[in-house]
Amino acid sequence: MPQTEFYYFPIKALGEPIRLLLAYGGEDWKDNRVTPEDWPNFKPKTPFGQMPVMVVDGKQYAQSIPLSRYLGRKHGLAGSNIDEDFLIDQNVEFVNDIRAKAAQVQYEPDEALKAKKHEDFSKNVYPGMLAKLDQILKENNGHLALGKLTWGDFVFAGIYAYLKVMLQAPDLDERFPAFKKLEQTVYSLPKVKAYADAAPKTDH
Amino acid sequence: MPQTEFYYFPIKALGEPIRLLLAYGGEDWKDNRVTPEDWPNFKPKTPFGQMPVMVVDGKQYAQSIPLSRYLGRKHGLAGSNIDEDFLIDQNVEFVNDIRAKAAQVQYEPDEALKAKKHEDFSKNVYPGMLAKLDQILKENNGHLALGKLTWGDFVFAGIYAYLKVMLQAPDLDERFPAFKKLEQTVYSLPKVKAYADAAPKTDH
Ligand SMILES: N[C@@H](CCC(=O)N[C@@H](CS)C(=O)NCC(=O)O)C(=O)O
Ligand SMILES: N[C@@H](CCC(=O)N[C@@H](CS)C(=O)NCC(=O)O)C(=O)O
Repeated sequence: MPQTEFYYFPIKALGEPIRLLLAYGGEDWKDNRVTPEDWPNFKPKTPFGQMPVMVVDGKQYAQSIPLSRYLGRKHGLAGSNIDEDFLIDQNVEFVNDIRAKAAQVQYEPDEALKAKKHEDFSKNVYPGMLAKLDQILKENNGHLALGKLTWGDFVFAGIYAYLKVMLQAPDLDERFPAFKKLEQTVYSLPKVKAYADAAPKTDH
Repeated sequence: MPQTEFYYFPIKALGEPIRLLLAYGGEDWKDNRVTPEDWPNFKPKTPFGQMPVMVVDGKQYAQSIPLSRYLGRKHGLAGSNIDEDFLIDQNVEFVNDIRAKAAQVQYEPDEALKAKKHEDFSKNVYPGMLAKLDQILKENNGHLALGKLTWGDFVFAGIYAYLKVMLQAPDLDERFPAFKKLEQTVYSLPKVKAYADAAPKTDH
């Protein structure tokens, strides 16, 4: 029995950063992909009624960013003092702000409203946020913080495909080559690559 | 000139946790309350075009939860290992999930839609989340995590009044006495009390 059980839907989205970190850390883990059909049974057994969830020694861990930070610290991908850790946290939170903004559109059930919001955000919100993120990567040697590989890069790389879908921006790679490059930096790490090559293919 | 300049709107909301932590830590800080009239001038000078922002030695720090974690670690309010830190992070993130859910209602510009969302969430979303939060506080000796005072308690106490407004739940104190009690636990700490007694009064 593997030491770590990981549970998430059969997509990348909020679960992928944790998968990438478990792979990078060389952990003995099982990648349980819970189908929407099985989810209602599992939901009440999770800490907050949501996934991702990690289980180690019978203990449940939830919340994707806290989980990523935890695994990052465990596997030597954190800062070396509270100031460095802060910079990772701050920039991860900004990536999360972009994700949350786009999720407001993605999860809007009313189609007309969804289209209206997308148009509004595409004009008034996303361009500034994405340019700022691009600037951050440029100032950090292609990374999200500290000018080197940290767990923040895993958060970005893991959710990047999902972000593209939610932003409805299939041209994001071309508009911001630094984004695609950082995704590739993480997915090219040998243990991460081995995981990704063997993982079920999903588009986001 | 104080060593730390803090900038936020003249409300509690996302800025108050940081004010409470700066007060608790006995820092030499200035509580700059930026009015909506002055904001457009200041906005482009901030890291992400938003507040709260903290400035120390000319360096800007942004993002409310990362800032709270940073000050918590600085002032002895963090866990003593990565597992303990994770538990604080996880439960803070859950409080933030509740806040984000309620913000979807609060910042909905269409009044009819706002009322509809509030009704939906009040029936199907908030009760489960609030009961879960209540359970967490009960399992943690009245605190958000680790059964003792941590920076997570400051995040909760700082945003509690704002949460009540956004949840449109003036009866929250009565429905969940543990919430009010935790807010009071933090606001009763001597240095926090001294700050709050002297601070401009705002209802959220
Ligand atoms: N703040 C949580 C949010 C988790 C979340 O939104 N999970 C979604 C999938 S991405 C979920 O479990 N949805 C199913 C449900 O709520 O029933 C985290 O970052 O882990
Ligand atoms: N993720 C950020 C969000 C900050 C945020 O939403 N700030 C709002 C006030 S609560 C703001 O500055 N709004 C003014 C604006 O966007 O122009 C944080 O936690 O600090």
